Amino acid sequence: MAAPRLTVAVIGAGTIGLSFAALHLAKNPTCNVKIYDTRSDLSEYVGDKLCEYLVDADVEECKSRVQIAESLVKAVENADIVQEQGPENADFKQTTWAQIEQLAPQGALFWSSTSGIPASEQSKDMKDQSRLVVVHPYNPPHIMPLLEVVPSPATSQEVIDRTLEYWRSLGRVPVLIRKECTGFVANRLAFALFREACSLVAQGVVDVEDLDSVVQASMGPRWTVAGPFKSYHAGGGEGGLSSFMDKIGGTVQECWNASDRDVEAGNIGVGQSWQEDVCRQTDEAYGVVDTAQRDKKTKAVLKAVSQ
Amino acid sequence: MAAPRLTVAVIGAGTIGLSFAALHLAKNPTCNVKIYDTRSDLSEYVGDKLCEYLVDADVEECKSRVQIAESLVKAVENADIVQEQGPENADFKQTTWAQIEQLAPQGALFWSSTSGIPASEQSKDMKDQSRLVVVHPYNPPHIMPLLEVVPSPATSQEVIDRTLEYWRSLGRVPVLIRKECTGFVANRLAFALFREACSLVAQGVVDVEDLDSVVQASMGPRWTVAGPFKSYHAGGGEGGLSSFMDKIGGTVQECWNASDRDVEAGNIGVGQSWQEDVCRQTDEAYGVVDTAQRDKKTKAVLKAVSQ
Repeated sequence: MAAPRLTVAVIGAGTIGLSFAALHLAKNPTCNVKIYDTRSDLSEYVGDKLCEYLVDADVEECKSRVQIAESLVKAVENADIVQEQGPENADFKQTTWAQIEQLAPQGALFWSSTSGIPASEQSKDMKDQSRLVVVHPYNPPHIMPLLEVVPSPATSQEVIDRTLEYWRSLGRVPVLIRKECTGFVANRLAFALFREACSLVAQGVVDVEDLDSVVQASMGPRWTVAGPFKSYHAGGGEGGLSSFMDKIGGTVQECWNASDRDVEAGNIGVGQSWQEDVCRQTDEAYGVVDTAQRDKKTKAVLKAVSQ
Repeated sequence: MAAPRLTVAVIGAGTIGLSFAALHLAKNPTCNVKIYDTRSDLSEYVGDKLCEYLVDADVEECKSRVQIAESLVKAVENADIVQEQGPENADFKQTTWAQIEQLAPQGALFWSSTSGIPASEQSKDMKDQSRLVVVHPYNPPHIMPLLEVVPSPATSQEVIDRTLEYWRSLGRVPVLIRKECTGFVANRLAFALFREACSLVAQGVVDVEDLDSVVQASMGPRWTVAGPFKSYHAGGGEGGLSSFMDKIGGTVQECWNASDRDVEAGNIGVGQSWQEDVCRQTDEAYGVVDTAQRDKKTKAVLKAVSQ
C-alpha cells in the first residue's frame, strides 16, 4: 500500500530529528517535511547535515521536499503529523504540546520520540489528551526498523491505529506497548542483558571485547531471525517452550540465582567502582567507533533477514 | 592458514554430536571423523541423519571421511581430538574421561560440550587434569559461530591455545572464558534478557510475539554488528561508554530498579504461575518452528555481517 501524501512537522533537529526527517523523505516519496528547531543556523545546519542520513536516497529530490520552519506555528499549521524530539524535560514537553494542540489541524497525529517521559505526563496540559502517543525509535531510526508505540491510558484507538498503519506502510516495525512503564520494552530488555554483561566483566569471567564477541556470534544473529520466545520455543522441539522449561528450567533458574548473587557481590549499580574499569576496557578495545560502517553492516543484515 | 589433518572422535551422536561432526567435516576438508554412541542402530542412524547437517557441503565426500566406531576404544585410539556430548551427568563424565585418558594418544585434545558441568568437576578422576577443557557451542554448532572455551584451573595453557587455534582455523569464533561459572557467559546473558522478557509479558506490558518483534527489529541486528559494550560506547559519541553512562546512567539505573521490582511483584521464578500463560501465548503465536528456515536465514545474516 502506498503511503499517504502528507506533511510531517519535525520539531527538534538533533540527530534523532534529522534521522526521522530522512526516514520520512526516503520511505514516503510523496510527503513533505517541515523542520523546526530553535537553533539560529537551522537552515544551514539542515542543508549540511541531512544528506548524511539520506545514504541510499536521491538527496536533491528529498531535499526539495524539505522546508525550514521559522516558528512553531509555521511548522505545524498544515501538518498531518507532528513529531517532537525536544529536550527530555517534562515541563518543556507539557508546554509544547499544549501550544501545538492550539496551532495544528484537528486531525494531526502528535508523536513524541521521548525515551522516558510517558504520554500521560506530557499531555497533562492538553485539552484533548487522546491525541498524543509516544513513538520511541531505536537509534538511528533511518536504519533500525523498530518503533515502540506507547499510548497513555487517554490515547484514542484511532490515533494508535493510524500511527501503526503509517509505520507499517513505510515498511517499519511499529510495536504497540500496552502499558506505560519505565524505559518501555527495548531498553528494559537491553539494559537487563547489559547489567549481566557488566557483572560478568566485573567478576573477571570475560573481558569487554570477548563479551561482545560472544553476543555477536550467538544471540545477535539468532535474535535477528527469531526473538527469545520463538528461539526457546524452537529449542523445546515439538513440545515447544513448555518442554524447554521442563528440561532446561533448572539451569535457567540456577543462572538467574547466580546472576542475582554476582550483581549483589559486584555491586553492579550505575556509578559504582566496577564502572571505571569497564569503561576503560571498552575505550581501549574500540577507540572511536565507525558508526557509518556499523550502519552499513546493519543494513546488510536487515536486508539478509528480510529475504 | 589450513586446518591440520587430523582425526576427531565424536562421543555421543545426538543433535549436538551430529552437528559438530558435520562442522568438522564441512570446514576441515582433510579431517576424519569417528562417531561413537551406545545406540544399537548407530550406523543406520548416522547414515540417515548426518546429511541434514551437511547443507552446503558435498555430502558423499564428507560421508566418505566418517567412520562408525564400535567401541569407545576404537573411537579414541588414534584421535587427535576427542569431543564428548554424552548425558549431562557428572558421574558419567568423570568415568568417561578417566577411561578416555587411558585409551587415547598422549597429545589428544579432550573437549566436553557440556552446558553446565565444569571441567574441574568432570576431570576429578583423571590422572592428568590439564588435558580437559569445555568447548560449549551455541546450538546448532554447524551454523552458529560461537564456541565458549572454558578451562578448569588445571587446564594447561597449551591445551587452551591449541583449542582456540583449531576453531579459529575453521573460521569460528572461540571465546576464552576466564573463570568457571554457572551457565558460562552466553546463557547467562541470554537468560538475563529472557527473565526480563518473561516479566514484561507477565505484567501485560507486551505480548510474546510483539516482544520477539521488538528484539528482532532492534537488539538482534544491532548486536550482530556490535555487541552491547561497543554499541553503548558508540552511543556515547566521542566520549564513549563513559560519556554514555554520564548521560544515560540515570535512566539505566531506573530501568534496573524497575526490573527488580517487577520481577519480584510478578514472582518471575521458573515454575511460577506466569509460566503457563507465557508458554500458551508462545505456542499460539508460533506452533512448530521451522528450524531449517531459521537456520537458512541465520546463515544469510552471518554472511551479510562478515562482508
